[in-house]
Order: sequence, then C-alpha cells, then structure tokens
Amino acid sequence: MGENVAVIGVGHTEFGELWDKSWVELVEEAGLQALQDAGIMKGDIDKFFLGNMSLGMFGGQEHTASKVFSEIFKGDAESEVLGRRIEGACSSGGLALEASFNDVLAGAHSGDDKIIMAGGFEKMTDKPTDQATKILSAASDMGKELGFTFPALYGMLKDRYIQETDAEEEDFDHIAVKSHKNASKNPRAQYPFEVTHDKVKNSFRVASPTKLLNSSGIADGAAAAIMTTEKKAKELGSNYVLLEEVVGVNDSIALFEREDVLTLVSTKKAAKRAYKSSGLTPADVDVAEVHDCFSIAEALALEDLGFSPKKEVWKWIKKSLSGCEDKEAPIPYELPNNSELYVNTSGGLKAKGHPVGATGIAQAVEVTEQLRGEAGERQVPGAKVGLTHNVGGSGGTAVVSLLRKP
Amino acid sequence: MGENVAVIGVGHTEFGELWDKSWVELVEEAGLQALQDAGIMKGDIDKFFLGNMSLGMFGGQEHTASKVFSEIFKGDAESEVLGRRIEGACSSGGLALEASFNDVLAGAHSGDDKIIMAGGFEKMTDKPTDQATKILSAASDMGKELGFTFPALYGMLKDRYIQETDAEEEDFDHIAVKSHKNASKNPRAQYPFEVTHDKVKNSFRVASPTKLLNSSGIADGAAAAIMTTEKKAKELGSNYVLLEEVVGVNDSIALFEREDVLTLVSTKKAAKRAYKSSGLTPADVDVAEVHDCFSIAEALALEDLGFSPKKEVWKWIKKSLSGCEDKEAPIPYELPNNSELYVNTSGGLKAKGHPVGATGIAQAVEVTEQLRGEAGERQVPGAKVGLTHNVGGSGGTAVVSLLRKP
Repeated sequence: MGENVAVIGVGHTEFGELWDKSWVELVEEAGLQALQDAGIMKGDIDKFFLGNMSLGMFGGQEHTASKVFSEIFKGDAESEVLGRRIEGACSSGGLALEASFNDVLAGAHSGDDKIIMAGGFEKMTDKPTDQATKILSAASDMGKELGFTFPALYGMLKDRYIQETDAEEEDFDHIAVKSHKNASKNPRAQYPFEVTHDKVKNSFRVASPTKLLNSSGIADGAAAAIMTTEKKAKELGSNYVLLEEVVGVNDSIALFEREDVLTLVSTKKAAKRAYKSSGLTPADVDVAEVHDCFSIAEALALEDLGFSPKKEVWKWIKKSLSGCEDKEAPIPYELPNNSELYVNTSGGLKAKGHPVGATGIAQAVEVTEQLRGEAGERQVPGAKVGLTHNVGGSGGTAVVSLLRKP
Repeated sequence: MGENVAVIGVGHTEFGELWDKSWVELVEEAGLQALQDAGIMKGDIDKFFLGNMSLGMFGGQEHTASKVFSEIFKGDAESEVLGRRIEGACSSGGLALEASFNDVLAGAHSGDDKIIMAGGFEKMTDKPTDQATKILSAASDMGKELGFTFPALYGMLKDRYIQETDAEEEDFDHIAVKSHKNASKNPRAQYPFEVTHDKVKNSFRVASPTKLLNSSGIADGAAAAIMTTEKKAKELGSNYVLLEEVVGVNDSIALFEREDVLTLVSTKKAAKRAYKSSGLTPADVDVAEVHDCFSIAEALALEDLGFSPKKEVWKWIKKSLSGCEDKEAPIPYELPNNSELYVNTSGGLKAKGHPVGATGIAQAVEVTEQLRGEAGERQVPGAKVGLTHNVGGSGGTAVVSLLRKP
C-alpha cells in the first residue's frame, strides 16, 4: 500500500471579482486552508507545484513560484520547500496536480514519503473582459494572429455537433440551468444564483451559437491540495481520500489539425489510461467535475470520458435535465454508461467560476469534499468514486484524475 | 549503474536577432539537432519539458508545450510524447533540465528507462529593447509596480560589492573581455567579436555602475538536451556524458528580503547539495557555464559556487584576467579553490547571448560538448567534469548541475 497517493488537505478561495486581494494573497489563503485542513505546518511541505496560465499577461508578473516561496514558505526558518510553476493554459492546475502526484510516487519508489502541495490560481478581473478574452486566446493556436476567441472556437464545435446530429441548440442550455442550480448551494461560487432555461436560451449571443449563459466568466481565485503517500497519511491520522491516478495527455493545439473536431482525443486518451491503471470504469464514478468552459464542452466531455457513445449524449442531457429548474440540487444525469452521475456539483466552470490556473485543483477540492461527505447542501449521498477533467485550450492538453474513498 | 542519468544528444540554435524564424521553428531546430545527435527518432521520446519565461508577454502565446507537440511530435503516428512547460523566469531552462533529470530517475526507480528531452527557448527581439527590458522585470519582485530593471538590480549588487571590498569598478570589466574572447570562437554566439578592457570600461552606463558591455543582450534562440539512463545510453551506443545531479533551490524573489544581498543563497545551497550528492568538489570542476547576465553576476557566482571565499574573488579575477586581450581563448581563471577553471567558454550569457528560457539548457549543451571533446576552438584540454549554473531573477531561483565524462 506504500505507493498509494492520498490527498490529505484541500483549500479553495471564493471565486469571483476579488479586487481587494492580490494574487499572492489568494494563493496564501488557499494554501493555508489546505495546511490547516491537513493539520500540518508550512515546513512539512517538501515541494509545491503552482499552476498558472498567465499572470504575465494578466498582471505583468512571472517567476511566481519564487514569489510564493518568499511570501508563504520562506519565513519558516530552515524550511527547504521547493516551488515550481507549471503552465498548460486552462489545464495548468491539472498539470500541477499531475506533477505533484508523480512526485509523491517517485519519492515512494525510493522510500521517501514526500508531502507535496498542488496549487493553482488566476487573477483575471483586473483586466476588462474584452482584454481578458484576448489574453485567454493565447491558449489557442496563434490566437493573437488569427483573432479567434474561445467562445468562437467552442461555438464552432457546437455548430458542428448540431449539424452532425439531431441535437438542437437549446438542448445544451439545460446544462447551464443545472450548473447554476448546483452553484446556488456553493458558498464559494462566483454566480450562486439559479437561471431558467428560457433565460439561458434568450441570453446574449457572445459568438453564435455560444450564448452568454453557455459561457464561464472571467474570475479570480486560487485552490490547493496537499498529497502524500497513503502510509504517511495514516501516520498523520489524516482524513484522506485516495488519488488513484492523474493522467495528462497532449493533442494538437489547433482544431483544424484534428481528424474529428468533435472528439477531444486528449480527453479520451487520458480517461482511457486513468480507468485502465486504476481498474475503475465510467460506471463506477459517482461524482465528476468536468471542464465546462462552455455548455458544449460539458456535453463533449461526457462522451469523451466514456459516459455516453459519441454524438448521443444530447439525448440523455435532454432526458436527464429537462425541467430541472424544479428539481433540488444536486441534480444527476442518467447516462447510458452510468445510471446516476453527478456532474459539476460545485457549479462547474460555468457557475462556480473559472480562474483558469486554479480550475484543475479546484475540481479536485470539490471531489475530495464529496468523497469525505463534507459537501454540505451539494452532497451526493454515498459518493465513493470521483473524477476530475481539466482541459487546456480546446483540447491541446487534457488531464483526468480519479479519486476514491479509502 | 542503472540509476545514472546520461545526456545522449544536444542541440543549440544560433543565438541572436533571428527575425526570419518563428519561436516554434527555433525549438524544432534545436530539438531535431538533439535527436540527430542522439541517433534516435521523435517517437523514441517519452516526454519533453520546455523552459520558457514569457512568450505570453513577448509574443502573446501561452500553452507552448501543446504547440510544440502539434508541430514536432504529433506527426509521429502513434507517438504518445507528453509535453510540459516549466517557468521560473531566466532559470526556466535549468528547471526543465531538473524536471527531465528527475523524470529519468523516477522512471529508473520503477524499472522504466525513459528518454526525456529538456528544451528551452525565448523569442525576445520582436519587441524593442526598452519593452523587452520591462518584460524581463516581470522576473523580479513587483518589477512592474516598482519600476526596477535588472541592469539596475545588478547595478545595486555591484555598488554594494565595491563598497564592502577594495574592488574597483573596472576589475569586473575583465570578465566581459574574457567572455567576448571566448565567444569569438563560438559560431552560435550572438556577439562573436572581441572587446578591449578600455572599450568595456568606457561603454555607455545603462544603470550605473552597470555598463552596456557588462550586460547580456536581448536575444532569440533555443536549445535541447536529451537524457536517459546510463543503461539505456549504453544499449543505444550513445556518445554520452553523465548528468550527475541537477538541483534547483528557491530564495526570496526580492533583494531587500535577504540577510546578505551579496550572497545568492539559492546558488549556494544548490551547489552545496549538488557537490554533496555527486561526491565532487569545486576543485574537480574543469569547465563551468555560469549565469553572467551581468559581469557582477559571474563574480558572485564564482564565490557562491565555492570557487573563492566571499568578497575575495575580485582579486583573483584581476590576477587571472588582466591583460587577457592578448591571450588565446579559452582563457582560464586561477582561483583559490580551483587552480585552473574555464568559465563560460561559450561566451556566456554576455557574449553567446541570453534568450532567457534557453539559457539553462544551452549551458548544458556547451558543457556536454566540452566533455565530449567536441568544442572546437573553445575546447578545454582534458575536460572531465563540468558545472552549469542558471539563475532566475536576481536569485529567486538557482539551478546547479554537475556533469562528468563517463
């Protein structure tokens, strides 16, 4: 059992327009919450991996791991904490989770029970929304030169999906209704209010057929998760969950280089490997936090993660979520490969918020709390297995993790 | 011997104002050179770590590992190469070297002989020099808000050094003379011309006492190094050198938070650990590529790396390098802890060039070629042990590696 990885503490700031806090204060807040939750001290951390997409473009600061070391860890006398920043656009947090997981495993193989913190943050709202949208296009292929924005890129995917299937545009709007409903039970959410299907359907077209209420917003926030070996977690008496696997996979950054734009090959491969190495299947998953930067992205994710055959999930979305305005959160999907799957109980990127570098870690925080039975009004009864799914760009990178109640 | 790491191939573009090449073409050029040098194919690579400080601010593009995957690796049919970007300002390359080294070791511990490529690049000259200088200040503590530039920060260190010792400003100018002399023998160098001591002494004051010819310039370039286990290197019949250790250490990002600004604690600790774990000492080192972004930085590095007691190296610089205009390159130092040390035979950051994210890898390329006896006119006879030293900011991060001829 010495080579199992355990998440022993998590932290998560409020997501939103947090103009009264600096980025480093947000990282500190999430990090200290995670330390407190784990019941350990700063100096117990061996290393941290920090996911951030672009504080350079958002705030003119790089070398953030050194700054975090200075502000948070250096005071701790002889502490020799190491800090490294990882960047993979909106999957930066997921890649920090992956690097941390790999580091714990590598330590375990040489008999060293390391304690690693995975952190992620973004500070986006200091820029006006149009500038922030331009900065985010740096995650796509030559976004600056080609002038594509992500609402447009995902709009193209939605258009194509509608062309290739019998789905109608408004089928996807149910997803936003469900996510807002879930977010209304999440005190950390950026948009903790409910929306009706009509409201989503009639919302402003940002880049048709992507509408405002199909889209995640611009947000500030940070999240942190501390992990070590299960052996060490037991020694520490932690209230832990097992991190069974974290797999990050690359694909072409540009949509036009893909054989089938409606398949995110990176997601598909990452999921396949994660299921294989953990021995789990889509049917085993009780809760999933998936990368719903736009409504169509949640639909595609459900297919690529194996919960539905390709080009069929829209039927199940319609069936599961029609009229969900009147149901109580959290609201499950019924899917062909999973009879009751709770997706984005946190509210997801759509309604909890998407400070991009934080997202991959924030997803792991939500799933950890669900598996510990501490998700409050969002709690999925008896949740035993959880999945996170974090995408960079429109699938140039995808990271899938599987977590399990011990 | 299965856990020794071997560098089996290296690549290095010309450094300079390369306006006719895109950043991804530079990365491809260095990467393909390294593959050819190693005698392996793209698909043999398991993973690459890409060091880059800020293509976001320099060129509006993030998610660079995905782009490199798309352009270089994806064509290779079923290749499952993974790409990750690491950022630690000017030490991004060194951190990619460290991540690659750790990944080979981790694989070896679980019986997997991975082949990893460490790459680094920067594309800086598309911006005017004043804008590039501002972008680089993102590596310092709140550089944007405080208005510090690196010529100014290192100027403060030089001033302080002169105040605390009997060194004179012009003592440091010998370093630039030596580095340009070395660069004149390096076909990849940005500034492959010689300069006299008088010319350095009388050059324009960029941020007094930092003069133009004490400073590295703004450059484009990329470098790559492929590594695996020594066992695998032997199987492949590679002409390899051993990478004994790579250690990256953090310190406070701001100078004012340090007990003694004239000691880069990150360099000192990284060197100490690298020497300890490899069993090597400063006296064993034949060639060293150190982070001479400014002349004072090379002097401080020689002290912090253990080649001279603190605050004394200026005497040895004066003694070793006075009148070196008239000597043949490469020109060694005589130092109290190393009787003949060749430093920055490549020309260093000063004269070979400093495309910041490439530097940490480029240093390893130079040392590898020296240890293989392939450094041409710059060859240090009988070089057996080499060191690289790569700094982020003004010491918020430092990475030290030790290499050895097998």
